[in-house]
Amino acid sequence: MKIGVFGTSMVGQAISGKLAELGHDVMVGTRDVAATQAKTEPHPYGFPAFSVWQKEHANVKLGTFADAAKHGEVLFNATNGTGSLAALKLAGESNLNGKLLVDIANPLDFSHGNPPSLSVSNTDSLGEQIQRAYPNVNVVKTLNTVTAFLMVNPGLVANADHTMFVCGNDVAAKAQVTEWLKDWFGWKDVIDLGDITSARGTEMYLPIWLRLWGALGTGMFNVKIVK
Amino acid sequence: MKIGVFGTSMVGQAISGKLAELGHDVMVGTRDVAATQAKTEPHPYGFPAFSVWQKEHANVKLGTFADAAKHGEVLFNATNGTGSLAALKLAGESNLNGKLLVDIANPLDFSHGNPPSLSVSNTDSLGEQIQRAYPNVNVVKTLNTVTAFLMVNPGLVANADHTMFVCGNDVAAKAQVTEWLKDWFGWKDVIDLGDITSARGTEMYLPIWLRLWGALGTGMFNVKIVK
Repeated sequence: MKIGVFGTSMVGQAISGKLAELGHDVMVGTRDVAATQAKTEPHPYGFPAFSVWQKEHANVKLGTFADAAKHGEVLFNATNGTGSLAALKLAGESNLNGKLLVDIANPLDFSHGNPPSLSVSNTDSLGEQIQRAYPNVNVVKTLNTVTAFLMVNPGLVANADHTMFVCGNDVAAKAQVTEWLKDWFGWKDVIDLGDITSARGTEMYLPIWLRLWGALGTGMFNVKIVK
Repeated sequence: MKIGVFGTSMVGQAISGKLAELGHDVMVGTRDVAATQAKTEPHPYGFPAFSVWQKEHANVKLGTFADAAKHGEVLFNATNGTGSLAALKLAGESNLNGKLLVDIANPLDFSHGNPPSLSVSNTDSLGEQIQRAYPNVNVVKTLNTVTAFLMVNPGLVANADHTMFVCGNDVAAKAQVTEWLKDWFGWKDVIDLGDITSARGTEMYLPIWLRLWGALGTGMFNVKIVK
């Protein structure tokens, strides 16, 4: 399948690398292709610059946000949440319309230091903002509740015996994404939380997730819903 | 132990009933004792009026917020979160000072309909507001992430193989509360998330918790942290 992935950092790399490994035709979108190619220093968080990463993932293409949006039959938003709406604007509404957009972004605002706050929360969410801005796109919020490596390989923790969530207005789109989460990435337990307003819940989960990371000393964890 | 519990509704009933059953000397605090005693209709959510409940829990005393605060060597805040600061003001700072206050409340604001929003969130929390208002009280935030019955009986779900959190500035107070959670209620896995600012995380978890309740069709669930 032709897939467009917006974002070149850790989440974009994890998603596009895994999708390419599965045989999909993946193009990653960035704001400025030349700038992305020129950057070679690792990110302060430790993951490689996209240009360095791409050398070992030569089958993953790089283009502008608009190129990736045109390329993809299905799209993944793996940009920083505070920049997602700007990235999607550059992608272009006509290139997005009619497509399924898997939104993985979190609106984490680090501008006031650590811990980050959310740039939108409580009575709204990034998922809803995107859905409102692009009413002809099927937005499905998912994967934003775990660290990048776990998104595409949940078996790295507890034999994948833990839970992922999907939120979105379109029932068929959520069912499709749930199938991909299971077939492509190996998720076993996927809970449909409801319409796109339930993205508030998964985005507002980030503060406890970040504290758990600190308490556990690792990002390699998740919640399992037990009842 | 002499324990004061603020709040007469479902959480206050669950906590005070269990503590009395364990042999503690429990007084529940309310704003207006006569009004609480006069009310006999069940709450719209289905739990009994305090006066009805108390007939089967005659060893649980009822008093004003100030009476309960004076009575308790240890205090539990089981009021509605949007009314907690007002309740604590009525309890009286001098009656609270030097004591450990277990804060279970969530600042859920139903005034704009369902789903509720949080009346404080993102860059602050109810736990922090209480700690700031009463600097000589040791506030420990816990139990606010599960339904009332599970708080005091986690074994009702998955043999208690799931997770509770504690947040607070005082390490010894958190250790004490953790011991009580285990010895009194049967919690097995308690994670210390950090200082009282981590209460933001557990309060902002409420939106996903409410959506999970809807998706699962029951409040009898919890998260287990797996790594």
